[in-house]
Amino acid sequence: METQIFNSNSDSKPSTRPVQIGPVTIGGPEFTVIAGPCSIESPEQFLETALAVKSAGAVLLRGGIWKLRTSPKTFQGLGNDAFAFIKDVLKTTNMQLVSEVTDPRQIEQLNDYVSMFQVGSRNMHNYALLKELGQTRKPVLLKRGFAAFVDEWIKAADYVVMGGNENVILCERGIRTFETTTRNTLDLNSVIYAKARTPFPVIVDPSHAIGVREFVPALSLAAAAAGADGIIVEVHPRPEQALSDGMQALTIDDFSRLMKKVESVLTALDRPLQKL
Amino acid sequence: METQIFNSNSDSKPSTRPVQIGPVTIGGPEFTVIAGPCSIESPEQFLETALAVKSAGAVLLRGGIWKLRTSPKTFQGLGNDAFAFIKDVLKTTNMQLVSEVTDPRQIEQLNDYVSMFQVGSRNMHNYALLKELGQTRKPVLLKRGFAAFVDEWIKAADYVVMGGNENVILCERGIRTFETTTRNTLDLNSVIYAKARTPFPVIVDPSHAIGVREFVPALSLAAAAAGADGIIVEVHPRPEQALSDGMQALTIDDFSRLMKKVESVLTALDRPLQKL
Amino acid sequence: METQIFNSNSDSKPSTRPVQIGPVTIGGPEFTVIAGPCSIESPEQFLETALAVKSAGAVLLRGGIWKLRTSPKTFQGLGNDAFAFIKDVLKTTNMQLVSEVTDPRQIEQLNDYVSMFQVGSRNMHNYALLKELGQTRKPVLLKRGFAAFVDEWIKAADYVVMGGNENVILCERGIRTFETTTRNTLDLNSVIYAKARTPFPVIVDPSHAIGVREFVPALSLAAAAAGADGIIVEVHPRPEQALSDGMQALTIDDFSRLMKKVESVLTALDRPLQKL
Amino acid sequence: METQIFNSNSDSKPSTRPVQIGPVTIGGPEFTVIAGPCSIESPEQFLETALAVKSAGAVLLRGGIWKLRTSPKTFQGLGNDAFAFIKDVLKTTNMQLVSEVTDPRQIEQLNDYVSMFQVGSRNMHNYALLKELGQTRKPVLLKRGFAAFVDEWIKAADYVVMGGNENVILCERGIRTFETTTRNTLDLNSVIYAKARTPFPVIVDPSHAIGVREFVPALSLAAAAAGADGIIVEVHPRPEQALSDGMQALTIDDFSRLMKKVESVLTALDRPLQKL
Repeated sequence: METQIFNSNSDSKPSTRPVQIGPVTIGGPEFTVIAGPCSIESPEQFLETALAVKSAGAVLLRGGIWKLRTSPKTFQGLGNDAFAFIKDVLKTTNMQLVSEVTDPRQIEQLNDYVSMFQVGSRNMHNYALLKELGQTRKPVLLKRGFAAFVDEWIKAADYVVMGGNENVILCERGIRTFETTTRNTLDLNSVIYAKARTPFPVIVDPSHAIGVREFVPALSLAAAAAGADGIIVEVHPRPEQALSDGMQALTIDDFSRLMKKVESVLTALDRPLQKL
Repeated sequence: METQIFNSNSDSKPSTRPVQIGPVTIGGPEFTVIAGPCSIESPEQFLETALAVKSAGAVLLRGGIWKLRTSPKTFQGLGNDAFAFIKDVLKTTNMQLVSEVTDPRQIEQLNDYVSMFQVGSRNMHNYALLKELGQTRKPVLLKRGFAAFVDEWIKAADYVVMGGNENVILCERGIRTFETTTRNTLDLNSVIYAKARTPFPVIVDPSHAIGVREFVPALSLAAAAAGADGIIVEVHPRPEQALSDGMQALTIDDFSRLMKKVESVLTALDRPLQKL
Repeated sequence: METQIFNSNSDSKPSTRPVQIGPVTIGGPEFTVIAGPCSIESPEQFLETALAVKSAGAVLLRGGIWKLRTSPKTFQGLGNDAFAFIKDVLKTTNMQLVSEVTDPRQIEQLNDYVSMFQVGSRNMHNYALLKELGQTRKPVLLKRGFAAFVDEWIKAADYVVMGGNENVILCERGIRTFETTTRNTLDLNSVIYAKARTPFPVIVDPSHAIGVREFVPALSLAAAAAGADGIIVEVHPRPEQALSDGMQALTIDDFSRLMKKVESVLTALDRPLQKL
Repeated sequence: METQIFNSNSDSKPSTRPVQIGPVTIGGPEFTVIAGPCSIESPEQFLETALAVKSAGAVLLRGGIWKLRTSPKTFQGLGNDAFAFIKDVLKTTNMQLVSEVTDPRQIEQLNDYVSMFQVGSRNMHNYALLKELGQTRKPVLLKRGFAAFVDEWIKAADYVVMGGNENVILCERGIRTFETTTRNTLDLNSVIYAKARTPFPVIVDPSHAIGVREFVPALSLAAAAAGADGIIVEVHPRPEQALSDGMQALTIDDFSRLMKKVESVLTALDRPLQKL
């Protein structure tokens, strides 16, 4: 059941295996936009952002509960305090949530709140976590390790698939290279390769990939034009007040403008933008 | 006269300084497509490719005379033999040529044949060559060193500019990273950054950046959507017979199809495709 | 309690804070050699290797129980089956074991068998695991993530330290770079830097760093000469039959020869080799 | 005449082909130390440094005449002005000079002053320069490109060898990786590999590899212990006044202390230090 990587552009080339998240499909004919804050900070911030990104056209909501941060001294996410209000926000907005799981012992609790588990870049090689997610049947958004070969990324997906859970979506979020001018280096080559050679849907996180608000729209359009199945974008109503990664969050206006351009580019390439 | 890198998205943000190559402008409102073979191999191959890429919409011709190759045992380009027929092909097709200069002692000779000098990735740090090109007034297409920081790329451009020649165009052609699944890693982040922060036009070489024919179109569209000022693409009438880099050359049909998609994407973003 | 990185070679330069593992001290005046198999494969293999490395001069034993492997289809270590005989081997040889923990839920069980927990390169960013190890008082050997900045390595150590467990030893095991001629690239620069600027002992894993048996001795001597506090080396009585990483395992004879040379180099630099 | 890379540790393993530079041999049984300033700045500075490094045990003198610098605005070396006094210093000290050539048109002029041409890291891919050096019979010190594969380094050497000049010495000077804590990352793995698999002598430049004076000695000792054939070290009588790279230059006292330690380590490994 190990995933076969198809080595040539032959008839046996895999078609992407779409993944269903409630009413949303990733990896089908339509292009999917996921948006929301880096961290869920408060009921007000989460609700405001959720309503705004939905209104601008996002079909899934992102938002971190536990944040993996380089230093143990920086904001680590609301953690359990977020559970007091998440369901209300999701019900009010009728949105589905994607959120990161950072410990196998969180899966059971988180399961009630999210429609898709996210595995972050730092945990792509955390096979204990991946195996445990293979025991669920819920979709898994597997971010590429920031220094992982495509082959390691596919094999990490296999740790989930081998447990019986085929609902894996790959997400490229920038790799670590010698270049430090921007936060990371988006590797669209690998997006194009993974789309052509594996059955997994592939989306792009332009926010982490470049790390500068001003540059996120251009990178998002590039991802759409390159054939990715979607993007996951950080949006904050007041980025300058964000508790994490405010530098790279789009304002609500930025995001609305971007959605219009994304749709234009997709239309030019005969691909519909997914809507709720 | 050192190039200022603008550090914020302020009013003082530089507008791109367009560069004129005969009837063609790079870095203006229009998007420029340069195409042709990796190496000029024979009068027939050069003419056939030139006519085909022109007919498909390319406005400048590329073609290598001296090739920099890792091993001294592999094909090094036709060298001086190419000069016997280059002018005829250019006259017949009414096209302008971009070709690589690999030694300061070639400049004078090459000057009669090319409308733009190309400096290859391996020579970006060859300051003796850059200084000499600064003494000409002919446009210089400066490929980014495959492991050069953006800052080094800009300062390499300054070696030309300081001689009095401001006609420099930057070209990103993929960087060397840990990832070896594709030939190089296209760094669109740096394209977006260089466009926003420097006065130089910036184009993309998708052929070297990914190294696999099948993947070149997707990367070309990404470059157009990201806001690059153009692309330089390798095309060969029979790639399987190419003397260098056949793996990444588009066929003439591939290229024609690509041009149509590029134009669609540009139109969606309100940017015209430059035509002769 | 965040670890201060000392920025200059001043009087305030930290002295290394030695860590005690039973009768062994890492980070004191003496140089420590840890050796053993990549994986514990059987009672016989583990006992034979343990006796041999002890006799050659190793003072701590290494051996993997759960192995992190890129593909879920390859040998994953003996797992729980190893617990049936580990204590016997340690008692017979009077050695202490260092072994990798790959899941926070393994800590309690493993605690009875190991004298030092190892965190592997793939888990350096697994902060859930690090926090849990901070709740123990047992030494932690923290391997550097293969693409982690030194600063991230130090801050990962802080996830342990902030729980109250200061017994952290850093281990450099090669980083991932563009170069693929050898398995990884040993980064001695960072060893030298971390020794000079942090209070943690720093050791080197030459086996993973270069991945080729023939080259491990030269790299071990380099680590000793550069001022590392020790090395951790893979040894197998019959490397060609090893279930994991046989390519890089020294034979017992290789290891004995290496120990003599290591001691010579240390003597030349007035540093004693630690003995049991 | 392409250099064969030997793929296994077999009987056919190449022995290193020593290169003779006047009375000095690199790649023979003895270990060679080359030292001197980054740039030749004045007759006084050059003479003072030459006398001091000779007295401390260096057998060859280094010193830059034309410096390759990232920015055209920084000090570019004395250039032709240096020729007025170089011969006097060499005669007074009875030393031989290694100096960098940055343009094929400099070879003839430089030939009278140097006993070995140095090709810098930025010019390793400058094949026009390498071919021209292949036409001389003078030793060439070929620094590895900071992002060159070992295979490209060997093939660059072949550009010299194929001209008939087999006197090539390889020099590893640090590669560019994601890690920026120190200036570059010394790649001892590749030194060990190149020594084992090619016939070229291999030396190490610890000064550029780490870029911080305080750390140069530890790295030099590591290079000696790893089996390099020598080191090339930057020394300046007053590093804080150096016109280039003062941060990494050893003082004369530092260098004298280092020479003693290098000799101790070599003695422990039964390798003599070469003396004049």
